[in-house]
Amino acid sequence: MTLPSPDSGAAPDTASDTTRGPDVLAELTGAVRAFAAERHWEPFHTPKNLVMALSVEASELVEIFQWMTPEQAAGVMADRDVGEHVREEVADVLAYLLGLCDVLGIDPAQALRDKMVKNARKYPAPQAPDED
Amino acid sequence: MTLPSPDSGAAPDTASDTTRGPDVLAELTGAVRAFAAERHWEPFHTPKNLVMALSVEASELVEIFQWMTPEQAAGVMADRDVGEHVREEVADVLAYLLGLCDVLGIDPAQALRDKMVKNARKYPAPQAPDED
Amino acid sequence: MTLPSPDSGAAPDTASDTTRGPDVLAELTGAVRAFAAERHWEPFHTPKNLVMALSVEASELVEIFQWMTPEQAAGVMADRDVGEHVREEVADVLAYLLGLCDVLGIDPAQALRDKMVKNARKYPAPQAPDED
Amino acid sequence: MTLPSPDSGAAPDTASDTTRGPDVLAELTGAVRAFAAERHWEPFHTPKNLVMALSVEASELVEIFQWMTPEQAAGVMADRDVGEHVREEVADVLAYLLGLCDVLGIDPAQALRDKMVKNARKYPAPQAPDED
Repeated sequence: MTLPSPDSGAAPDTASDTTRGPDVLAELTGAVRAFAAERHWEPFHTPKNLVMALSVEASELVEIFQWMTPEQAAGVMADRDVGEHVREEVADVLAYLLGLCDVLGIDPAQALRDKMVKNARKYPAPQAPDED
Repeated sequence: MTLPSPDSGAAPDTASDTTRGPDVLAELTGAVRAFAAERHWEPFHTPKNLVMALSVEASELVEIFQWMTPEQAAGVMADRDVGEHVREEVADVLAYLLGLCDVLGIDPAQALRDKMVKNARKYPAPQAPDED
Repeated sequence: MTLPSPDSGAAPDTASDTTRGPDVLAELTGAVRAFAAERHWEPFHTPKNLVMALSVEASELVEIFQWMTPEQAAGVMADRDVGEHVREEVADVLAYLLGLCDVLGIDPAQALRDKMVKNARKYPAPQAPDED
Repeated sequence: MTLPSPDSGAAPDTASDTTRGPDVLAELTGAVRAFAAERHWEPFHTPKNLVMALSVEASELVEIFQWMTPEQAAGVMADRDVGEHVREEVADVLAYLLGLCDVLGIDPAQALRDKMVKNARKYPAPQAPDED
């Protein structure tokens, strides 16, 4: 059994699920789905509403940083309260992103792997890649 | 050894890495980091800039849906081109989210697990959870 | 005296500048500028920070509407509290937009007139305009 | 007849319309409304869709600035092409803001005057205002 190199990155991934074991994204997606279902929120979780909610949560992250200097922003996690606030907004963005993928039938990990292949063509690395 | 119930969701997860196998989020984070490093983009990838980029990508998702009726939005993946566009923007949001977590030292999966515990208190489920 | 053909765009405007009297946008811009100056906020009101703040306020508008059906959204002003909330967020967006224009030296009214001329070329009206 | 002091700002304005002459915001709102009507876009211009479009345009402004240093951002208008891009995105934000106000029956200028009264209470100026 070969482990996929975690740095292969831009390469399309053909590893089987059994190689990988339970997927953290699948775990989190299941948790997000159950959370909404238990509260009967599915009727609100349409794709259009979820993209709105996702962008709102992303803006709540922006709000934390909007008046900071680059230096203050770089040290944001050193402040316990602000750091926890950032962590919570990151979680909200991830929750809506996974919820959106769930209702649309998108595999976010594979979407990102595919996008990185495309981006690698669009923005070629200035030097030979790290295999050399 | 017990596997974590995939629906436990709100519960902090203490399962060992070997239970889970290689973490897809760690794999993707490594790929995103390598991609930026190969292009010498790290100086631009400050926390402040990354939250801006994240919100911009979230808005590119919103742009796809902004003039659609709820019905059109629900069927968006049936159109091959629009569906691929959605998939790419989802990937961009995930890439910047992981890049942001990487520079800030946040574990996005654990952040979401913790946030769901907090949300479960804030929004109690109207009924007994599904274990009953 | 010649009428300013303000690039008449789509614009049914035939008023001369003297007809117009004090410009409401100039009035509001002056008020926004004075408000920031009295609080010594100018160092924070850089272009980069102001575009962030503008997008955050726009998202606060989105947040009000994100879970509404189209019908609920259409009737939003009938609810006194929600309507007032919408009105306040509209005000915040306008405040940051005028503040941004002020620091960048942009005349927002002329920018919009010019953009409408460009848009009219990009999206030609399907029929003869209403003058016919 | 007294002209409203252009710097009165935070004060609710009770000046009659004849004092002010044709209002530039009314002019622009009329132009935005006519532009949409000529293209039969009204069915798309629901409040929910318009707030989405507004936030998307605000993000297009953010996109211009996202990788800039504060210094680069401060000098953005010195580059003719980038400056024109900023001006166009400002125009798009203003267009959707006025379109939204139009369909919701909001007077954006009065909304901002009212909001500044409220903000002045929330954030008292550290010193006596400039009238003293």
